[in-house]
Amino acid sequence: MTTAPLSRRDLDFLLYEWLDVTSLTERKRFAEHSRETFDAVLDLSADIAVKHFAPHNKKADANEPHMRADGSVEMIPEVAEALKVFADAGLVAGQFDESLGGMQLPAVLARASMAWFQAANASTSSYPFLSVGNANLLVAHGSEQQIDTFVRPILEGRFFGTMCLSEPQAGSSLADITTKAVRQDDGTYRLTGTKMWISGGDHELTENIVHLVLAKVPGSPAGVKGISLFVVPKKLVEEDGSLGERNDVTLVGLNHKMGNRGTTNTLLNFGDGTHTPGGEAGAVGYLVGEENKGLSYMFHMMNEARIGVGFLAISLGYAGYLQSVEYAATRTQGRAAGDKDPSSAPVRIDRHADVRRMLLAQKAYVEGAMALGLYCAKLFDDQETAEGEEASRAALLLDTLTPIVKSWPSQWCLEANSLAIQVHGGYGYTRDYDVEQFYRDNRLNPIHEGTHGIQGLDLLGRKVTMGGGSGLALLAETMGATIARANAVGGAAAEYADLLGAVVGRVAATTGKLWGTGDPEVALANSSTYLEVFGHMVVAWIWLEQLLAAEGSEGDFYDGKRAAARYFFRYELPRTGPQLDLLDSLDRTLLDVDPAWF
Amino acid sequence: MTTAPLSRRDLDFLLYEWLDVTSLTERKRFAEHSRETFDAVLDLSADIAVKHFAPHNKKADANEPHMRADGSVEMIPEVAEALKVFADAGLVAGQFDESLGGMQLPAVLARASMAWFQAANASTSSYPFLSVGNANLLVAHGSEQQIDTFVRPILEGRFFGTMCLSEPQAGSSLADITTKAVRQDDGTYRLTGTKMWISGGDHELTENIVHLVLAKVPGSPAGVKGISLFVVPKKLVEEDGSLGERNDVTLVGLNHKMGNRGTTNTLLNFGDGTHTPGGEAGAVGYLVGEENKGLSYMFHMMNEARIGVGFLAISLGYAGYLQSVEYAATRTQGRAAGDKDPSSAPVRIDRHADVRRMLLAQKAYVEGAMALGLYCAKLFDDQETAEGEEASRAALLLDTLTPIVKSWPSQWCLEANSLAIQVHGGYGYTRDYDVEQFYRDNRLNPIHEGTHGIQGLDLLGRKVTMGGGSGLALLAETMGATIARANAVGGAAAEYADLLGAVVGRVAATTGKLWGTGDPEVALANSSTYLEVFGHMVVAWIWLEQLLAAEGSEGDFYDGKRAAARYFFRYELPRTGPQLDLLDSLDRTLLDVDPAWF
Repeated sequence: MTTAPLSRRDLDFLLYEWLDVTSLTERKRFAEHSRETFDAVLDLSADIAVKHFAPHNKKADANEPHMRADGSVEMIPEVAEALKVFADAGLVAGQFDESLGGMQLPAVLARASMAWFQAANASTSSYPFLSVGNANLLVAHGSEQQIDTFVRPILEGRFFGTMCLSEPQAGSSLADITTKAVRQDDGTYRLTGTKMWISGGDHELTENIVHLVLAKVPGSPAGVKGISLFVVPKKLVEEDGSLGERNDVTLVGLNHKMGNRGTTNTLLNFGDGTHTPGGEAGAVGYLVGEENKGLSYMFHMMNEARIGVGFLAISLGYAGYLQSVEYAATRTQGRAAGDKDPSSAPVRIDRHADVRRMLLAQKAYVEGAMALGLYCAKLFDDQETAEGEEASRAALLLDTLTPIVKSWPSQWCLEANSLAIQVHGGYGYTRDYDVEQFYRDNRLNPIHEGTHGIQGLDLLGRKVTMGGGSGLALLAETMGATIARANAVGGAAAEYADLLGAVVGRVAATTGKLWGTGDPEVALANSSTYLEVFGHMVVAWIWLEQLLAAEGSEGDFYDGKRAAARYFFRYELPRTGPQLDLLDSLDRTLLDVDPAWF
Repeated sequence: MTTAPLSRRDLDFLLYEWLDVTSLTERKRFAEHSRETFDAVLDLSADIAVKHFAPHNKKADANEPHMRADGSVEMIPEVAEALKVFADAGLVAGQFDESLGGMQLPAVLARASMAWFQAANASTSSYPFLSVGNANLLVAHGSEQQIDTFVRPILEGRFFGTMCLSEPQAGSSLADITTKAVRQDDGTYRLTGTKMWISGGDHELTENIVHLVLAKVPGSPAGVKGISLFVVPKKLVEEDGSLGERNDVTLVGLNHKMGNRGTTNTLLNFGDGTHTPGGEAGAVGYLVGEENKGLSYMFHMMNEARIGVGFLAISLGYAGYLQSVEYAATRTQGRAAGDKDPSSAPVRIDRHADVRRMLLAQKAYVEGAMALGLYCAKLFDDQETAEGEEASRAALLLDTLTPIVKSWPSQWCLEANSLAIQVHGGYGYTRDYDVEQFYRDNRLNPIHEGTHGIQGLDLLGRKVTMGGGSGLALLAETMGATIARANAVGGAAAEYADLLGAVVGRVAATTGKLWGTGDPEVALANSSTYLEVFGHMVVAWIWLEQLLAAEGSEGDFYDGKRAAARYFFRYELPRTGPQLDLLDSLDRTLLDVDPAWF
């Protein structure tokens, strides 16, 4: 891959010209930072991503990890080498407190930094991405001792972390997990059960692996109210920080996937007696916080992971977009429309209207998604570091937007990857180019960390109804402010503002109508359609924001922003019309189906 | 794969209850046939597909063909074994004249037969699929001697065939091919040049390979008017039919693809001197028909191949649909909407509205596409064997619908495969299940035999304008007859007829508006959008046809048809509204883009 995996020019526009992230340095937590330190992190990230992550992306795909006879995991050595460079540069710790050895970077910068790695090599980037989420959870909810024992080594890159939720029989239905945690006299717990789909669940990349495991303590309430959270290390850690006995956590198998092949995805047994720490079967676990509050703690990590999945989808979409732009600018084929002279020279394929459609659609998807992702990351910073009401508003907005920032890029940046293949024609379908891998890698994102369907239920069933609809009201108010600014500017901005305003009004009315039924089954029957409408509305708003940020600036870069905004408002936002009609009709097609009809 | 790859029940409905294919036996060519012989072919096809094709589908994907040091191709032995069973059963020859050893099957039956193999194993089925198209071209345009020499062995399964159009520098732009054919004193030609993307271009599956090659005779006109067509066998054939010298056709390399891995896809050199038939370099070729008429002959095969690609997409979509139906009926997870009791048992996932959406959407796509494919195959039969005006009307309708039957399944049955993955959740993303392979295999179909963009140009630039718009008028008339019947039936049929009628009217008006500009560049700028609108209109009509065919019949099967029709009219057809708005606006967004903006 010689093409850059992301556009630094676009990141600079989004971070500095639009989101004005430099203003974050006025806050105490970020006071040591400046535009210069931010730029240095971005430069460093781009450099390491291009030099150490991108070069083995295809090799890791073609040579996926496998289990050795002794139960250990073999993978190509480039993964560990790249991750060592990453950790040594301090990038695992970027967002964390200085007291923990971190840089206290704003989340928005940390996400932009991580996006370089996700775009260069999705699989290799997943190990630190999960580890950061794991460490963040422990910093928020773990004890001092847990932070010292597990977080510090993660931030140094010596340990990696996982999240262990799913079980074979339960899938996304956490109420049905059966992994058991029995309290011991010494205050520890012993866990027994099987966890499924655990990314990074085993490997030899680090000295140790820190599993965060959902389990039930016998006697706890049924369902999700009886779930507790435990730290379960692969190897026990002594008081002095040295590694002790092997814990009773065993790799049973690796899943072999369509894409994302470089990330181990595992079936893990806890407490099956393969190992006997302290002379006994059972995986030793340490309770995080209090019993039966595990799910709320895990949502700390889950919400962060959902934004991260959005960024994974964005990054893969972006990398494919840039490669197809380059391909279309260098490949010549056919003639300009209307040129009937067979002796004239073939033209660059980006001269053809349909190729331009595919490039412009990709641009609208990936740059719109990147802007949305960074906006949400900035909301996280505001939630954590702004004063008073600004923080609580940011928290509410972020909570509302989380299903969108997870699902929208997963759907549309995957579509971008499909278009990137199409721009390449037959070449794009071969493994000689990168775009087919991006497409395969990206197909994971609508599935993990809550499927598309689950995001729809979360949005319509919870996010827009919580607090009497305060999240939706705040979002509408925020979009309304943008619309007002756009109207003041006039021209295309005002034209798009009208289109957006109409959709915002319809979404509010439709939401009321759906819940006005008083029947959750009818209200939620088309929640996936609602999710798609909502996503397109939000990204249209984000494009209007970008258009306003580009206002008055000249040159190809800004003209490109204007063209992509125009594409989004003319080709994309109108899709929502028939979808809203369907929702307004309280359609029962899906409810009336008898499965025997399939 | 234990699930059937296709639904025989649905085929029976489409062939007998809807298309009334038994009436074809009243025609002279099919007089020896009956419902019994048709059923026997379908039974045989299903049996061989399930027993000999499906079992090695995954293995062929995981063990793709490779070139040995001697330039020959190694592949898993199951491919040749399955193809021998296929040929020995007479299935290559199914559609051909009895005088050639064929069964004189109607095309609609031959397509239904082949669909079983495409659904069971797309890659293995591609070898005979291409060979049949090759043989059909030679029967139509080749000499008696060419038919005896090349077609008969193909029909016996001793030779396979290819079509060689693309070249590395020319891609889809056939005007720019440079392969040269020089006339020799003995009436043969010698070809030199390089052909790219040749499926089945080399292998050891058969004694010989019959290439149909586009090339230019020196002195011919520039562009497509100077293209001639040649038969170029891998090995020369003596007068007695025995194999002679190796021709100068050399495998240069195999493409390694995302899917469809079992079908060799090749770069071939013609006449590079690796072999010297008759003591000289240059690939020996035999002119088909007349010089400079090659492209029109090749379109014979190309049009057939385009329908075949549609069937490939349909079959893969169908196989994935049936697997996800079965998965959803056996997998339990979560609770019914509104059930807050964590102690109640998990339900089958097809109880969840969003899973039903994904199953119903797949059903609407794959059954709609299968019906369209068979309808087009029946039009081919009418074109070839009906009397007088009925034949010419069928030919015109088929010509108009060819870009749709190629493109619509390639887009929407791929989407069906994505939904099949999604129904399976994480499992669908693993290679333990089949659906991820279907998705990878199917991604080829919007690319080969004319990309999606090329189909759009063909439809809007040629098919709806030819003969003063007679194709579009005939289609509108045909759809109008269905609408009238639906109105007579009333109820849902009449409701859908109104929706369809409105779209038909808008498409006619929009077509007039686009060409009313007098500017082809503006008219064609959004031809892909036009293609999508047209496809949804056509498939909505096909669903209305199915609904009418199910009218008055009771039971799960017919209720399923009614539910899928309802889905299509409520969720799918309305998508065309904003797309038609865009087309009506004569939008210039794509034309106004400067590639420097990307």
